[in-house]
Amino acid sequence: MKHEEYMQLAIELAAKGAGHVSPNPLVGAVIVKDGEVIGQGYHEKYGGLHAEKAALENCHKNPMDSTMYVTLEPCSHFGKQPPCALAIIEAGIKTVYIGSDDPNPKVSGKGMAMLKEAGIEIIPHFLKSRCDELNEIFFHYIKTKKPYISLKYAMSLDGKIATYTGNSQWITGSLARAHVHKMRNDYTAIMVGSETVLSDNPMLNCRLPEGGVNPIRIVCDSRLRIPMDSNLVKTANSISTIIATCSDHMKKISELQDAGCQVLRLANHDEHIDLRQLIDKLGKMSIDSILVEGGGTLNWALMEVGLVNHIKCYMGSKILGGSLSKSPIAGLGFTNVDNGPHVEIKNVERFQNDILIEADIFHERSL
Amino acid sequence: MKHEEYMQLAIELAAKGAGHVSPNPLVGAVIVKDGEVIGQGYHEKYGGLHAEKAALENCHKNPMDSTMYVTLEPCSHFGKQPPCALAIIEAGIKTVYIGSDDPNPKVSGKGMAMLKEAGIEIIPHFLKSRCDELNEIFFHYIKTKKPYISLKYAMSLDGKIATYTGNSQWITGSLARAHVHKMRNDYTAIMVGSETVLSDNPMLNCRLPEGGVNPIRIVCDSRLRIPMDSNLVKTANSISTIIATCSDHMKKISELQDAGCQVLRLANHDEHIDLRQLIDKLGKMSIDSILVEGGGTLNWALMEVGLVNHIKCYMGSKILGGSLSKSPIAGLGFTNVDNGPHVEIKNVERFQNDILIEADIFHERSL
Repeated sequence: MKHEEYMQLAIELAAKGAGHVSPNPLVGAVIVKDGEVIGQGYHEKYGGLHAEKAALENCHKNPMDSTMYVTLEPCSHFGKQPPCALAIIEAGIKTVYIGSDDPNPKVSGKGMAMLKEAGIEIIPHFLKSRCDELNEIFFHYIKTKKPYISLKYAMSLDGKIATYTGNSQWITGSLARAHVHKMRNDYTAIMVGSETVLSDNPMLNCRLPEGGVNPIRIVCDSRLRIPMDSNLVKTANSISTIIATCSDHMKKISELQDAGCQVLRLANHDEHIDLRQLIDKLGKMSIDSILVEGGGTLNWALMEVGLVNHIKCYMGSKILGGSLSKSPIAGLGFTNVDNGPHVEIKNVERFQNDILIEADIFHERSL
Repeated sequence: MKHEEYMQLAIELAAKGAGHVSPNPLVGAVIVKDGEVIGQGYHEKYGGLHAEKAALENCHKNPMDSTMYVTLEPCSHFGKQPPCALAIIEAGIKTVYIGSDDPNPKVSGKGMAMLKEAGIEIIPHFLKSRCDELNEIFFHYIKTKKPYISLKYAMSLDGKIATYTGNSQWITGSLARAHVHKMRNDYTAIMVGSETVLSDNPMLNCRLPEGGVNPIRIVCDSRLRIPMDSNLVKTANSISTIIATCSDHMKKISELQDAGCQVLRLANHDEHIDLRQLIDKLGKMSIDSILVEGGGTLNWALMEVGLVNHIKCYMGSKILGGSLSKSPIAGLGFTNVDNGPHVEIKNVERFQNDILIEADIFHERSL
């Protein structure tokens, strides 16, 4: 096996922790001696062993003079337990291949420095972009203190999310819709506009056959139009629900609070909530990631102020037509093709007769 | 090699004739004896040898007792030359694997019957769907006498073909745009609405570095709005140009004819040309295939009356937004998701940072 294959194995191990390690990053580690994998491990869940220590603990041979492949820079921080860098030094490991840098500016580079000082050979940035992909949300949140925002929409082959009458069931097939529930499990919160609540009365929970963690539900509801008998309000005592508003309708606010909703009052920005302020607040509330499930008005509002990091576009094998049918990103729109954000298509995948397109979005301010 | 591989080779040979055999179908043939390919051939150009005869002519060993793999049922028709079925019998071929049936109801099955009668073993419908794909346009035209109609559009990741101001340059990158020119070479005609002529003043020619055949240009222009100084009219003497109208503005019609355009006068259907009548007429004019390059109004008009057979959707890595931005299929649109045609996604391909999605469209009446 080659170095790339060992690191790839570490990446695959890291990915096994998905959904269980937040707010920690996903990390995997592989230890190789004389061409044999003698130990491997990953960060399995929040509070559990770090990947490097798990790999060392699982070694079936003495790791002295071996090589470690680890997807993220080992930590150097002395807390309740000694840092991973120290454990690597004490185990007598000779060479360490490292994927991602630690994104925390306060500690970035310190783990590597500690290893180097101990005479260990370091190969940094090894398969870095693939390792970085493991922790896009984590890195974004650590660097910006703001949640990573993904827009998800399901549109027809001609770019419509609903007919002119509002009909949208179903544009995609059952497999793609099941995939959405899996995805909801990967985000801390899910966000919709009040229009979606009024038209679809959704639950926005994570309905996976094997169970799953329900995301925090956030409704952007400038004028506080959410009905008290909506599914969201009715289940607010069992699933965390945040209503973001700039309304001062105190009676409704107090009713919503009594029903178990958390109401965030925000600045009024042309009769709409100040989205930048909302996103900052949510970041401070430790919400590291939001899956936005539309509709077009909210999607445009987020896009216009440059808050979107990622798009998950499901394309169903349907044709809707209609100049007034519903668009995934509505509002006024950009004046020229080149006024929009920079888009990088990362992945194109087929689900039965549907397609999933995943793209990263880079707004000018972050380029 | 297995039977599938020999037929695959015949399919690849057949495809080499693309762009040169119309109005004939693409056909390839491979002759195998004792596990060795002893002859192969394809229909290279209209008027040239049929694939079976080309393969027999190229045999470097006696084809007696060999096996032939041919993508389309051999012809049985005595014309200027004896039929391919007879040539196969005379060559002493023992077994024939056949892909597609002859689509012409008058002769379908006759070639196979002739071979069987001569004691040749027939394996019909072998890799049939892959063989059928070679000649989708040909089969459609033979069966319906109407041109095969493909819609082509380039839209953003959020389903827009232009911003609300009409800006559309460029939604896709250079490689995808070059691919369009290659595609134009595969269709007999290209069709646009008068809106596209007025806004883009296109040439609609085939600009391939290695040359290429210009398609016949068709403008759907109910009210005869095409300007006399448009690129299409100015070049009508050198590239065939058809203007389809229901206007009775005889002076403009005569001016357009003097400029080299062919003007088709059609029934007036709510102030628009009768598209079904147009398509019938074009079929009678031996136009077997049309690439429709929009815009949204024409695309919807064709979709609404069930005339679309195929869609080529290019998706550029752009975000346009806007509830009033231009849609690829506009008009009123369908009332419900399930009122539209049946769509089968056939191919998803990436071009640099763009995507091409190819889908077959089945309107109820043809199911």
